[in-house]
Amino acid sequence: MPDTTPPLPKVPTIGDIEAAAERLAGVAVLTPLLESPLLNERLGGRLLVKAEPLQRTGSFKFRGAFNRISRIPAETRVNGVVAYSSGNHAQGVAAAAKMSGIAATIIMPADAPAIKRRNTEAWGARVVSYDRYREVREKIGSEIAAETGATLVKPYDDPDVVAGQGTTGLEIAAQCKALGVAPDAVLVCCGGGGLTAGIAIALADRLPGTKVHVAEPEGYDSTGQSLAAGERISVDPARKSVCDALLAPAPGVITFEINRHLVAGGLTITDDEAFAAMATAFEHFKLVLEPGGAAALAAALSGRMPMAGKTVVAIASGGNVDPAIFAKALTLTG
Amino acid sequence: MPDTTPPLPKVPTIGDIEAAAERLAGVAVLTPLLESPLLNERLGGRLLVKAEPLQRTGSFKFRGAFNRISRIPAETRVNGVVAYSSGNHAQGVAAAAKMSGIAATIIMPADAPAIKRRNTEAWGARVVSYDRYREVREKIGSEIAAETGATLVKPYDDPDVVAGQGTTGLEIAAQCKALGVAPDAVLVCCGGGGLTAGIAIALADRLPGTKVHVAEPEGYDSTGQSLAAGERISVDPARKSVCDALLAPAPGVITFEINRHLVAGGLTITDDEAFAAMATAFEHFKLVLEPGGAAALAAALSGRMPMAGKTVVAIASGGNVDPAIFAKALTLTG
Repeated sequence: MPDTTPPLPKVPTIGDIEAAAERLAGVAVLTPLLESPLLNERLGGRLLVKAEPLQRTGSFKFRGAFNRISRIPAETRVNGVVAYSSGNHAQGVAAAAKMSGIAATIIMPADAPAIKRRNTEAWGARVVSYDRYREVREKIGSEIAAETGATLVKPYDDPDVVAGQGTTGLEIAAQCKALGVAPDAVLVCCGGGGLTAGIAIALADRLPGTKVHVAEPEGYDSTGQSLAAGERISVDPARKSVCDALLAPAPGVITFEINRHLVAGGLTITDDEAFAAMATAFEHFKLVLEPGGAAALAAALSGRMPMAGKTVVAIASGGNVDPAIFAKALTLTG
Repeated sequence: MPDTTPPLPKVPTIGDIEAAAERLAGVAVLTPLLESPLLNERLGGRLLVKAEPLQRTGSFKFRGAFNRISRIPAETRVNGVVAYSSGNHAQGVAAAAKMSGIAATIIMPADAPAIKRRNTEAWGARVVSYDRYREVREKIGSEIAAETGATLVKPYDDPDVVAGQGTTGLEIAAQCKALGVAPDAVLVCCGGGGLTAGIAIALADRLPGTKVHVAEPEGYDSTGQSLAAGERISVDPARKSVCDALLAPAPGVITFEINRHLVAGGLTITDDEAFAAMATAFEHFKLVLEPGGAAALAAALSGRMPMAGKTVVAIASGGNVDPAIFAKALTLTG
């Protein structure tokens, strides 16, 4: 009888992440690890914030996109790339493609934040809109790839994308070492799980005693639920959340295969907690966060992740937010 | 006949700034130099932003305060320090004093932004209020110093404060060298001229071909007017400006003695230009700027400093702004 077990997906190694770091050196920003003594005093612990809004294109997504695009064979580059994204991956792919001299087509939901669409177009990409609640972006992406020969750059479920995001983890480990700190935990904003998976692989090698937790919006805690169940769980994608960057209805196949082994657990946060974290980042770190980019910080500030006596790194994963939403976050909590 | 010419004030040397950098190593944040390719494209030049809002206490002021306090003799430290400030120097002194185990009394205008007063108190300083339009803060400071034996930490007109602020210039020179860039100009937000003077001394040594310009609010262009006149000019201190950090009515004696020789000229910016620069920093750099901290960026964005074909460093000097003012900046221009 033939073995019908599906093959395990190919997952990146620490060596793949180190190779990605070499490709990204001098291209991506080595983002700072920020700290506020006054906030630490309030929390009774030490909170370090990895400031990916300062990354090229305003989120960590540039890392994975550039690494993936760097690996497209010469003969295929002329056909360009295609990607689907709520906005941050869109900008990351558009910028990486432009820097690599490759044409990019980006499939974006019609209700994506205006700043994300505008910047994607400013990077020279062609933008195709779709209806988040009626159409399947993966299908549109595959069709365009089949028609044009363009390489599909997936937002998370790709070993090269995961390896690129993992460079964030290498930097955190090096920065913590320079501070003489071994963090108890690292909190990662989680959509499809690519950033989480990359960071988890990097930290398993560099900071094996540090636990990785994901922070997800209420109703979109697909990775948290999947970790608890031991298998990939899908959530209802019709639910609304202000965290537009984190609305993946299910973990990726590759990312979950990594995260199921390396991630300690999941925390959920509400829209109001995301807004409050944006206001705290405004006051204490002078950093602009988008709601989804504030999820990890929200988990630390809300008490969902106990901070007393602990050292915790929260990833601030992105800062592409429309002014009206940001002003609302400041008004709600100011 | 005796010589009645007043002695030239003691000005810091590049060696004093290098010594300050050693004292601040590992204590102050080495703030990043940020860049936005999309904004560069719009400007037709290359703009680099030195992100001092990410500095400890949210502005460059911590540098000078810590350097000055480090130099107080052991026998005098027990009497504490006193300072007057609209807010950023207040927080810088309060934090530096706390880190040095010294008591601090801070004299702040009654209309200082709430965030600045709250954070100054959070750093453990005693805050004394005064009326910006009726009382003279220098007089109150001197009286407290005389009564208590506390050391007065001046906001700008002090060689050790200027040397501390000058470490910003050393960092800019090193960061530009790492990028392989020799900037045409550096734009500095200017109140009393301490940051400008420190940066000008550092750059005269490290980047002698780079011109230093000051950016000041309309009506408070005391350094610009003084540079043009060749002597210290005072402006009317009753005028209002949203740039609360830059409301010095006249250049300092020490700072002007430095700047008259090393600064190329002055540019003025309006309240609306400061707001627009805050909105641009929000969108392109994900950085929170206060109005006064946005003055240099405003000069670059408004066209007052020609950018076409140039490489210009704009100092973003601080980010301590109340949420309502920030939201207003986003709304006006969003």
